[in-house]
Amino acid sequence: MKVVDYSPGILQYIPFFYVIWSDDLLSASEISVIQKIIQDDTHLSEIEKNHLLKWLDRSNPPSEEEFKQWKHTISSSDIKLIESDTYPLASLSQRLGSAHCGTCEFNDSLKNIEINLGIQPNHYNHLFDVEVVHEKTSKRYDAEVLDTILKGEHDAIVEEFRDFLNQDVFSSRILRDKEEFRARVLEQVKLLGEKGYGAFAYPSDYGGKNNMPAYGAIFEHLMFVDGSLGVKFGVQFGLFGGSIQKLGTKRHHDLYLKDAGAAKLLGCFAMTETGHGSNVRGIRTTATYDSETDEIVLHTPGKNDNKEYIGNALHSKIATVFAQLIVNGINEGVHAIVVPLRNAEHETFDGITIEDNGYKIGLNGVDNGKIWFNQVRVPRANLLDKYGSISHDGIYTSPIKNPNKRFFTMLGTLVGGRICVARGALGGAKMALTISVKHALNRRQFNNNIKIQEDLIMDYPSHQVRLTPAVASCYVYHVTLEEMMKSYNDESQPDKRKIETQVAGLKSVISWFGDSAIQECREACGGKGYLLENLIGNLKGDVDIFTTFEGDNTVLLQLAAKGVLSDFKAEFNSAGFASVLKLLRSQLSDRLSTLNPIYANKVDADHLYNPKFHKHAFQYRTRRLTYTLAMRIRDYIKKGIPAYQAFLKVQTHLIALGKAYSVELAYSTYANFCETIQDQEYKALLEKVGALYALDEINREARWFLEQGYIGSTKSKAIRQRVERLCTELRPHIEVLVDGFGIPNHCISAPIAQ
Amino acid sequence: MKVVDYSPGILQYIPFFYVIWSDDLLSASEISVIQKIIQDDTHLSEIEKNHLLKWLDRSNPPSEEEFKQWKHTISSSDIKLIESDTYPLASLSQRLGSAHCGTCEFNDSLKNIEINLGIQPNHYNHLFDVEVVHEKTSKRYDAEVLDTILKGEHDAIVEEFRDFLNQDVFSSRILRDKEEFRARVLEQVKLLGEKGYGAFAYPSDYGGKNNMPAYGAIFEHLMFVDGSLGVKFGVQFGLFGGSIQKLGTKRHHDLYLKDAGAAKLLGCFAMTETGHGSNVRGIRTTATYDSETDEIVLHTPGKNDNKEYIGNALHSKIATVFAQLIVNGINEGVHAIVVPLRNAEHETFDGITIEDNGYKIGLNGVDNGKIWFNQVRVPRANLLDKYGSISHDGIYTSPIKNPNKRFFTMLGTLVGGRICVARGALGGAKMALTISVKHALNRRQFNNNIKIQEDLIMDYPSHQVRLTPAVASCYVYHVTLEEMMKSYNDESQPDKRKIETQVAGLKSVISWFGDSAIQECREACGGKGYLLENLIGNLKGDVDIFTTFEGDNTVLLQLAAKGVLSDFKAEFNSAGFASVLKLLRSQLSDRLSTLNPIYANKVDADHLYNPKFHKHAFQYRTRRLTYTLAMRIRDYIKKGIPAYQAFLKVQTHLIALGKAYSVELAYSTYANFCETIQDQEYKALLEKVGALYALDEINREARWFLEQGYIGSTKSKAIRQRVERLCTELRPHIEVLVDGFGIPNHCISAPIAQ
Repeated sequence: MKVVDYSPGILQYIPFFYVIWSDDLLSASEISVIQKIIQDDTHLSEIEKNHLLKWLDRSNPPSEEEFKQWKHTISSSDIKLIESDTYPLASLSQRLGSAHCGTCEFNDSLKNIEINLGIQPNHYNHLFDVEVVHEKTSKRYDAEVLDTILKGEHDAIVEEFRDFLNQDVFSSRILRDKEEFRARVLEQVKLLGEKGYGAFAYPSDYGGKNNMPAYGAIFEHLMFVDGSLGVKFGVQFGLFGGSIQKLGTKRHHDLYLKDAGAAKLLGCFAMTETGHGSNVRGIRTTATYDSETDEIVLHTPGKNDNKEYIGNALHSKIATVFAQLIVNGINEGVHAIVVPLRNAEHETFDGITIEDNGYKIGLNGVDNGKIWFNQVRVPRANLLDKYGSISHDGIYTSPIKNPNKRFFTMLGTLVGGRICVARGALGGAKMALTISVKHALNRRQFNNNIKIQEDLIMDYPSHQVRLTPAVASCYVYHVTLEEMMKSYNDESQPDKRKIETQVAGLKSVISWFGDSAIQECREACGGKGYLLENLIGNLKGDVDIFTTFEGDNTVLLQLAAKGVLSDFKAEFNSAGFASVLKLLRSQLSDRLSTLNPIYANKVDADHLYNPKFHKHAFQYRTRRLTYTLAMRIRDYIKKGIPAYQAFLKVQTHLIALGKAYSVELAYSTYANFCETIQDQEYKALLEKVGALYALDEINREARWFLEQGYIGSTKSKAIRQRVERLCTELRPHIEVLVDGFGIPNHCISAPIAQ
Repeated sequence: MKVVDYSPGILQYIPFFYVIWSDDLLSASEISVIQKIIQDDTHLSEIEKNHLLKWLDRSNPPSEEEFKQWKHTISSSDIKLIESDTYPLASLSQRLGSAHCGTCEFNDSLKNIEINLGIQPNHYNHLFDVEVVHEKTSKRYDAEVLDTILKGEHDAIVEEFRDFLNQDVFSSRILRDKEEFRARVLEQVKLLGEKGYGAFAYPSDYGGKNNMPAYGAIFEHLMFVDGSLGVKFGVQFGLFGGSIQKLGTKRHHDLYLKDAGAAKLLGCFAMTETGHGSNVRGIRTTATYDSETDEIVLHTPGKNDNKEYIGNALHSKIATVFAQLIVNGINEGVHAIVVPLRNAEHETFDGITIEDNGYKIGLNGVDNGKIWFNQVRVPRANLLDKYGSISHDGIYTSPIKNPNKRFFTMLGTLVGGRICVARGALGGAKMALTISVKHALNRRQFNNNIKIQEDLIMDYPSHQVRLTPAVASCYVYHVTLEEMMKSYNDESQPDKRKIETQVAGLKSVISWFGDSAIQECREACGGKGYLLENLIGNLKGDVDIFTTFEGDNTVLLQLAAKGVLSDFKAEFNSAGFASVLKLLRSQLSDRLSTLNPIYANKVDADHLYNPKFHKHAFQYRTRRLTYTLAMRIRDYIKKGIPAYQAFLKVQTHLIALGKAYSVELAYSTYANFCETIQDQEYKALLEKVGALYALDEINREARWFLEQGYIGSTKSKAIRQRVERLCTELRPHIEVLVDGFGIPNHCISAPIAQ
């Protein structure tokens, strides 16, 4: 093929035209960017300008002949594509022009095309037949800056803690025997307690720093060491210690809290029973007040009523036991009682039987066990009596009169634990993603082009789609959970019911995300991901149960949905159903905006990347699901179907609402956070990350949006393509993004990540 | 509320009207069923008939007042709902009528409403306020009949094998130490070899039965014992022995095959390398023919070129090694050579280094290892020379001239192994589903209705949607894989390229299905699913890698898609691209039917349950994806983009096509199989199972069908509702369906399944 004799001015634009026209996504806004740059180019003649502008006519695209000519022009130039150039395509273009006219001046604004269109080397390095000087990653961003943004207020504490983890006792080990594994984790927990990390969330009077948010960050970091450590830490300091702190009064704090925080007193949080996991209100263990002796008698009535999966069961001396409190023959509902389990010689007290739960899929460093009580007596003072107490003359009283509300208030103390569970799942996902992205930036497979090496597997579109949206989700969920923890910790907001609803949904969505992201990472690393030495396997096994414990996800999502339905009125579950429906009708019917038909067909990049579109889509979904759900329930109730049965019939609808609500919450929290970022470069990057999260979520649920007519077919297809495109645009920054998680190098011992 | 004085004739219909109108799905075809029965009811007066028919008017539904009246009529009757009645609703209705008129005769055809509308007790037992006599399962079907249908021709062999597995050596154990675990699995494999099960697929001259399909059934059953056993069995008899059988000639068969089949000679299948997993053609190990000594020299050239994850690596004496065969300086491509690894004392020979791969997520009973060769010499005769040989004077010849075709022919011998991998994943899913369904039929949670017990968790809609479609998929995939094995084994069809494409896709789709179904089962069993004693955990860990080994799923789906694209022309991958495209254009452009607009809005049950609709939807999808894919590639090629790069740009499209093709294949195979079932009762049940599979698949991909305009919004919603409805309809038979898998009781040792 002969090389057409393009003028140097035109020549410099040819690589851009080639890339742009080979891309399926050339949109009106993209064309206008280029038009503007051509029109403003003072080095071009009017003839050259007209020539170039003609090539931008979408109704009359360049011919195939022309296209091949461009390609040939680039290929035969012998100019290399250098990925490490700040603007590789603009640089290549100018060198192409210079080769034909050493003295010509070229348009410096070409790089603006590259920036505005988000064109990345991996977009086009397969298109040209030129030699490519590869780069694993761009140098444009600094991972430390991202890390600092994510650490937020906890910067100093987190940095110190990362250094603290750099010691042999925290190094990665494969321990198959549970006794050996548990012994090591116990040693780690004791060390953390000793150094004050366990008590972080407690008041300073009890050795703490009153800093629950920093406790959350510390908890997440333990996942980088080992899931068992994270969970045992959470059981000891969060659940056991936390129950003393939140459900007990000063007497209990004075007796136990300091030792709990220092891991000198090891304890259990004995709530779940074999027969009753998710349905806490149905637990059967009884705590009967005996006025004769002024004692409370703990008892396991039936075969399946033992406490089950209780962490710390084999190492502990004491437990917070949840039981039906019976005073004067009246069941006052579920309360927590402190029950000593073992003496100084570590022998169980009379009436207490404890059995090992045995081997599990993961978390084998945690000593889970079953506990039975046979008429075990403890003093009345052992009742954790913040929300319900028995007077010295045997009368039960509570500051919360409504037993239902009392129950949910006590359970509300679990909210902090649920945030930590989500945080742990998130930490697991970050760890697995860091390992698998680093692996994908090392490993090459296939490619038959002799001019370049086998491709990095990170350069495969299917691989990008697998990992990049998950990396984006980590950023969104990190920011969201930090915000949740702040709200939870905010003493000026005593009413925790709203955050309870929010956390119920987020715990579910984020633990499922973590579990599936880790699974995706395993597969993305192929056989290497299957070896325990590469850490992903144990992360999967450990995080797996996060979807179940601290509330089964399916149950929690229904809880979240009911919270949304009732506009956060706790009495929804009992009476007052009619009034709730009435409220809903008036609130929602006018809230639902009529759909804008222009919206449903808008496929421009500006629109698809705009947080306003994302927020609107998520809001619309939550509202629409809430409204239709309420109407369905109303119709059932009208027919005389009991509320319980009506809810059963709409169960899958409830779950859909719970998810939709949580995604909306996470995205809006993140988008608002992005607004506060000062540095415009990083703000832009993190906004792109947010756009990928949002589009990926809409993409996954595009079917629903299509059904509603919220998006049309063209928009649905465009969203799918944009997700792939965004993954490509983020490809040069993927290593910076995972490094931005700030996982210390001493934790990333996986050979494939080296 | 006062009870309205309905006549006994009308009274008997009231429970039906109540159920039907409380259901969201009352369709025209359902109404017509009821109309006909009323019109044919000779016991009714014309007035009664008109009264009843008026209640069927969809444009003027019964008032809420009327509705409550019906409910009150039923509730106040004190008549129990007895699930064990053959037709519980008809029975309840007649007793309701009888209560008001002991001498009246009632319409026996009421039961036809129950049958035709698929109304099941769990559909309506929450609607009435009557006492329910619960049944875990219906007695209508017999699991043994289903089992017999699934066993097909292998009935006797499978039954015998199930009995054989009932011995202590195959009992379930939790072995954490890999040496202990491997020793036990080795013992099991040796016993199976000794008893002739290993050689099942080999010719009778070598101790076999020439019965590959029965071998597949046996292989699947090993998953019920332990995944490690299945895999080690497959490595020894399928991969190692199979490579001797399929790639070697009589000399090799005589030397090795009998001992391989009896597990007296343990061997490896050494293909994968650390640097090259999926890209077998790129492996680096060399096998250089040395004409001086008439030997072949095996060598590992570089750091990452060692063999990796080789099963049996620590127990074996010998290996089939895949390497680049170099004869007279010319690389003749990948060939297999038999290489002795260890002497009688189990010491490795000079030049051979073997290392343990260590602990994995699962399959820790399999001794996977890495192997290096340092100038290891074997006689020329050790080349497995069916498809390529070296003559005594050092000349390479092959019956297949095209090296590309030769390579794929040799790899084609892996097809049997891939069917077994899919079979193994399927077995894992069956096992996990059996355990979790039985658990869900034992465990009760929630429900605040005092008249009935807490609900079985199997009665929750969310639980049904979780497990039931997966049970249906097991039936579909079982039948499909049996058919695939038959085709593969059919000597009258020597060209295996089509089945290679089919199996590449099915292996991917089924192994992903198996893995995610087991995960779903784990979560559906809550904390109990997390305990290793309940078996699901190890199944998950074992099946996990099935998505990667014997070909990574992502890579295999692209292979399948390319097979579809090229209309099974193997040369697609190299030259001849233009001709393939030409072929495609002519084939597809006239194949694509114009969409029928009536179809897109048809939501009647008859239509949605009709296999013709399902088949058409799947065919349409495959064709449409093929056509659009081919057009996209053509456009890239026209622009001069090299084929490799063009394929990279459409990678996610290829994967979508690979999946669509596999689902179409599986469903059509299953639907054709159902046609052959003689017993009409069981045929109807299995057709319903097939309908659930198909609707669930369409439901998952409804977004794509919506985008294409193949279905409209109303149909999309109706499909989602039908999936839930079908799960409910199958609820009474769910235990029979899992028992139909025929997993022996002695394998189901999980405490939660008792």
